[in-house]
Amino acid sequence: MTSRPFRFEVLARDAQSRARRGRIATARGAVDTPAFMPVATVGAVKGVTPQELRQLGAELLLVNAYHLSLRPGAELIAELGGLSSFMGWDGPILSDSGGFQVFSLAELVNLGEDGVRIRSHLDGSMQFLTPERVIAVEEALGVDILMPLDDCPPYPCDRSRVEEAVARTGRWLERSRAAWRSEGALFGIVQGGVSPELRARSAERAASLDLPGYAVGGLSVGEPRELCYEIASSSADHLPVDRPRYLMGTGTPQDLIRLVSMGYDLFDCVLPTRNARNGSLFTASGRINIRNARFARDPSPPDPRCDCPVCARFSRAYLRHLSVSGELLSAVLNTIHNLRFYLRLMSELRAALEQGRFPVYTSRALAELAGEVRETE
Amino acid sequence: MTSRPFRFEVLARDAQSRARRGRIATARGAVDTPAFMPVATVGAVKGVTPQELRQLGAELLLVNAYHLSLRPGAELIAELGGLSSFMGWDGPILSDSGGFQVFSLAELVNLGEDGVRIRSHLDGSMQFLTPERVIAVEEALGVDILMPLDDCPPYPCDRSRVEEAVARTGRWLERSRAAWRSEGALFGIVQGGVSPELRARSAERAASLDLPGYAVGGLSVGEPRELCYEIASSSADHLPVDRPRYLMGTGTPQDLIRLVSMGYDLFDCVLPTRNARNGSLFTASGRINIRNARFARDPSPPDPRCDCPVCARFSRAYLRHLSVSGELLSAVLNTIHNLRFYLRLMSELRAALEQGRFPVYTSRALAELAGEVRETE
Repeated sequence: MTSRPFRFEVLARDAQSRARRGRIATARGAVDTPAFMPVATVGAVKGVTPQELRQLGAELLLVNAYHLSLRPGAELIAELGGLSSFMGWDGPILSDSGGFQVFSLAELVNLGEDGVRIRSHLDGSMQFLTPERVIAVEEALGVDILMPLDDCPPYPCDRSRVEEAVARTGRWLERSRAAWRSEGALFGIVQGGVSPELRARSAERAASLDLPGYAVGGLSVGEPRELCYEIASSSADHLPVDRPRYLMGTGTPQDLIRLVSMGYDLFDCVLPTRNARNGSLFTASGRINIRNARFARDPSPPDPRCDCPVCARFSRAYLRHLSVSGELLSAVLNTIHNLRFYLRLMSELRAALEQGRFPVYTSRALAELAGEVRETE
Repeated sequence: MTSRPFRFEVLARDAQSRARRGRIATARGAVDTPAFMPVATVGAVKGVTPQELRQLGAELLLVNAYHLSLRPGAELIAELGGLSSFMGWDGPILSDSGGFQVFSLAELVNLGEDGVRIRSHLDGSMQFLTPERVIAVEEALGVDILMPLDDCPPYPCDRSRVEEAVARTGRWLERSRAAWRSEGALFGIVQGGVSPELRARSAERAASLDLPGYAVGGLSVGEPRELCYEIASSSADHLPVDRPRYLMGTGTPQDLIRLVSMGYDLFDCVLPTRNARNGSLFTASGRINIRNARFARDPSPPDPRCDCPVCARFSRAYLRHLSVSGELLSAVLNTIHNLRFYLRLMSELRAALEQGRFPVYTSRALAELAGEVRETE
């Protein structure tokens, strides 16, 4: 592993929590953590170019190996020089295995020890995902961080099924590690449902493999928020402090602040991009739905404190008009604003950590964001 | 009229045709002609920001007074400082009356001498368009060029109906002129179907009003292309040489080259933007449909000779993947490329006119574009 370019260093820590300010080095550049990854499932963030993503402060994108392997195909992407070149993003890329999609979107045909047999959501073709095949796809894509195939149980779920998922996730992780050849960094995944004991077992087994980073999966799948926080916190405790921790598929701005304080470094979520397409905009004082009639004549920017190119140039009245009219530009501008909101939040969290004012910053930010409950959507 | 900022000067002429290179001055800046106007019907070019439009070379945008008056309403836009401020475009804007939409999209209830009664395509409400109301809407929007309400007959059409349309278009133009108060420039519109005689009558009546510019409407409505050219050419002959001539709602790159040679200065068309959303891309050697399987592994840019930001960064293979996957970014990137194609064509036509090589440039460009017939779509 010493020949791999992936490195993680902790630059600053909060004295009162487990929050840390770090930096990941990859072959395609650095990622300052805590970091939010915009979601580029099929190799594109919906409506936003790589150049714009860079300007908004993105340093790491998330893609989905399962989706890309179905279309356009990992071999095709490899032939064209790898995903970074194919999609025109010169920074680092993290690839999710698509295991989560297997358990949510795709039609699951058979889950066995060898792998998962599913029916493609695109053309109905039979697909057989194994830990080794997922690694092969991710290595063909040439991504910088590889997520292994895992077994992600639903919520709620029998304890025996969660135990099975933990054991299988562990065995699959060992197979993934054995198959792993590329320069990219393989992360371990922790499962275990809402059981602190199973989470600890899963985390310790993953940690024993001495991987470059670790992720906590199987949260934000329907469990109550406080339970999610409790499990996220206890899972983090069982992961090595000198490796980046990635909380998969979460969450709201408030969630990210809470999770950073638990020692998580990496996040991804569809909220900023998906909400944008429905007219829901993040602001420092909570979420607003721009389609609301009260914005019809509002000349102020979406978020008066935002530094994004949309807030610099457009009014709530104009963005409401675009959204109500179903204009393509609505999705584009709203997505740019929401992504900048998330990316700036992470940048502010990093600055607060560097400057020793993390508790002050987060308590003020959480109080302001709570303005959300007063909003009419 | 001398207090209005609108001016048109001819800077260069082609010796062999009626093509001219000119410049329109408006309160919001200059428009170099021949010029193509991107279509921003409801105050937005689909998927492209005003900043991007400026970078692509756009100097004048086209909007639709009828659509904007229905939603968000001309008063609302006026209250927010006018359309230029509302939509974040600081350059000049031309507003079509929406008369053409009345005769194509909306449900026509009654066409009388006073105006047109229609049912809104948005909410079914009854709308009564009159020449005076259209001018009032356009003046509330604060646009730089105002198109009056006209009577645009379909093709084919009885001669008596075309005669009526010519007479009514003329009377409505007089009423529009009487209602016109703003700094914006009112253009006259020529109708007359495919009759050179009726076109001449309509053009001469419009020209007698000594307006800042003139438009030819009612073409590209289904008539054969050669007939369209014939009528466009004869109509131009009856319009004053010292005023800009605008051929409404046309056309392909080949059409624009032909129409420039007839002495037209302004154009608008949905082709570059609408085609983009269907995967149809303009190139110097003809149109291609990027969804075609032969582009699946094609690493070359959409148009190897194009200077747009899409061709600089993305391959045909990637654009095909985005289009086939229905990604939002597909429409955005394809639109940017197609608009740049149109805007660069106009820029090259202007340069050719300035440098006395218009015949050489256009004959080569037309021959290259004819590559289109060899393309498989």
